[in-house]
Amino acid sequence: MDTHVRRSPTDAEPPRRTVGIDVGGTKTLGLLVEHGPAGVAVLDRERVPSRADDPSAVDAVVGVARTLTERSRIRAGEAVPVPAPVTAVGVGLAGFVDRAGVVRAAPNSVGLVGQDVRGRLERELGLPVTVDNDANCAAVAAHALIEPTVADLVAVTLGTGIGGGLIVGGRLVRGARGFAGEPGHMVVDPDGPRCPCGQRGCWERYASGSGLGWLARRALRRGDAPSLAEAVADPEELRGEHVTELLGVGNRDAVRVFDEYARWVALGVANLISLLDPDVVALGGGVAAVGDELTGRVRTILSERFPAASDGRSVSIVTTPGGPDAGAIGAAILARDAAAAGPQPGSGRSGDRR
Amino acid sequence: MDTHVRRSPTDAEPPRRTVGIDVGGTKTLGLLVEHGPAGVAVLDRERVPSRADDPSAVDAVVGVARTLTERSRIRAGEAVPVPAPVTAVGVGLAGFVDRAGVVRAAPNSVGLVGQDVRGRLERELGLPVTVDNDANCAAVAAHALIEPTVADLVAVTLGTGIGGGLIVGGRLVRGARGFAGEPGHMVVDPDGPRCPCGQRGCWERYASGSGLGWLARRALRRGDAPSLAEAVADPEELRGEHVTELLGVGNRDAVRVFDEYARWVALGVANLISLLDPDVVALGGGVAAVGDELTGRVRTILSERFPAASDGRSVSIVTTPGGPDAGAIGAAILARDAAAAGPQPGSGRSGDRR
Repeated sequence: MDTHVRRSPTDAEPPRRTVGIDVGGTKTLGLLVEHGPAGVAVLDRERVPSRADDPSAVDAVVGVARTLTERSRIRAGEAVPVPAPVTAVGVGLAGFVDRAGVVRAAPNSVGLVGQDVRGRLERELGLPVTVDNDANCAAVAAHALIEPTVADLVAVTLGTGIGGGLIVGGRLVRGARGFAGEPGHMVVDPDGPRCPCGQRGCWERYASGSGLGWLARRALRRGDAPSLAEAVADPEELRGEHVTELLGVGNRDAVRVFDEYARWVALGVANLISLLDPDVVALGGGVAAVGDELTGRVRTILSERFPAASDGRSVSIVTTPGGPDAGAIGAAILARDAAAAGPQPGSGRSGDRR
Repeated sequence: MDTHVRRSPTDAEPPRRTVGIDVGGTKTLGLLVEHGPAGVAVLDRERVPSRADDPSAVDAVVGVARTLTERSRIRAGEAVPVPAPVTAVGVGLAGFVDRAGVVRAAPNSVGLVGQDVRGRLERELGLPVTVDNDANCAAVAAHALIEPTVADLVAVTLGTGIGGGLIVGGRLVRGARGFAGEPGHMVVDPDGPRCPCGQRGCWERYASGSGLGWLARRALRRGDAPSLAEAVADPEELRGEHVTELLGVGNRDAVRVFDEYARWVALGVANLISLLDPDVVALGGGVAAVGDELTGRVRTILSERFPAASDGRSVSIVTTPGGPDAGAIGAAILARDAAAAGPQPGSGRSGDRR
């Protein structure tokens, strides 16, 4: 997919190529991105299987970065019309990344915890590297792709857990330790199920992709959604993907479970709106691929059940543009911004976006 | 109270006087504030009874502003050592204020809704006026008084409702419509009691000053806190203030109710930390006057029950400095900042803090 966004024609900086890499739970996706006056364009891509719960995930990142930088330098063709060097690499991963680029906590990417991902990549690649939370990257991509005039945007990634990225006044919010924008562990039900983080009733227990599976299994156990059992041999194997598949063919039990799921998503979105008053809430991650099936429901539920977050506001609820490429595109943009801001040795700060 | 904060001696701007006014539910408090190289100093004060549910509250604001500007011009003495003109007026009130200075929603200040407070004051006073949410003002005061090096701060005002102000990267967060920072309507218990806003289980149902009274009455009805009945003739008259008074003398039922209250406060604070990763959370408003009785409990509960918001972080939980003066001090600072940024006709934007 080539993703383009128009920018002002007066923005006459020369095209610059960076590589953005998204480290997922089961694969590593790299994109070669060109940043030009017309916006960003994806020129090339490389995707390899990898496991974020294994330390070797970093090897996969190095490999993908090498492949794309080499192809950018030597290969000319339809996707890469002119050979040109890659000037920086950005990496997004599902975890808390401190300002020095070290992964501090990553329940869904445990193999990376404690690794100086940035330091290792800079040594191996000989290029400036930024490392950031993958949902921060998605927020940056959404901000670049939706509309440059939007100043306040919240990006929520509904995956194994829930990630978040906040753009406030046009800038990515990093927080005091670089851990800002983690709505998944907002407590929305103090008597709810225990979360691996140690709290009870965290938003991601209900509203992540895994949460959709949990709601479906609960409905099945309660006898509320018998037809969902037909999707799997073992009811305990029922996952969010089964619900969204059956939703696509109009299965009524799947619709009912998805309605409940959308109420949980809307609840957390309402909290984010009350707190941050954004122009846009962008929903991404696996579940969000159903598009308007989710965003439409969330809009309706917000107006019906969450007046504090909807009356007198006009927040756009959208699917994060770029789809599964959003994280890698955002990582590439953060790498470009950091390179433009010049080297910041040891700090790992990739420069606030302007 | 004179409130001083040191600033860098290289900050050599001349002292400048502004008036900051806090419109409370039952009184209007004005402060004459001098902004100098050593920080802010409160030179004079004026407090009049008023009702924020009555449109005449604006008259009280005009009166207080006039009194303080006149005294600043003519009266020299201990508090006002040198006569000097007031250059701007800032107003903080409990409500959503749009960017043009018009009050859009104020459940606890209904008399002000729809009024162009800023326009009227500018006409009557002949001075530039800024109008903002009172919790935004408290956040600005906390940011100025705590430590200028703190970049990320959340201020929470526990009063009739809950107000909030967010400082991110040293700037006050206003949001797309100027309504950012309203944590009181975060839903923290989807099956909880109905809130006047129309939602269920909003944080302020439990964790505001009114919420403390509600928790006490509920404990009394359940027979869990019999001795609280002695504080009032009619159990339905039991309020948060009664609990904090009895807490001060070690009443065990009051301690138990306050422990429960602190758990609700900590839950919302944990959510704010997960989302914004601040250096400091400042708790203000009536209940916070108990000081460490609240902040100490919140710190303990965060570390025991909310690991996602406490592990690996070192967030300071403090009582908002300035006490009941915080809102007016912050309003005075916002007025100074807006005046320094120059006139912004019609926009009502008081300039992001730097």
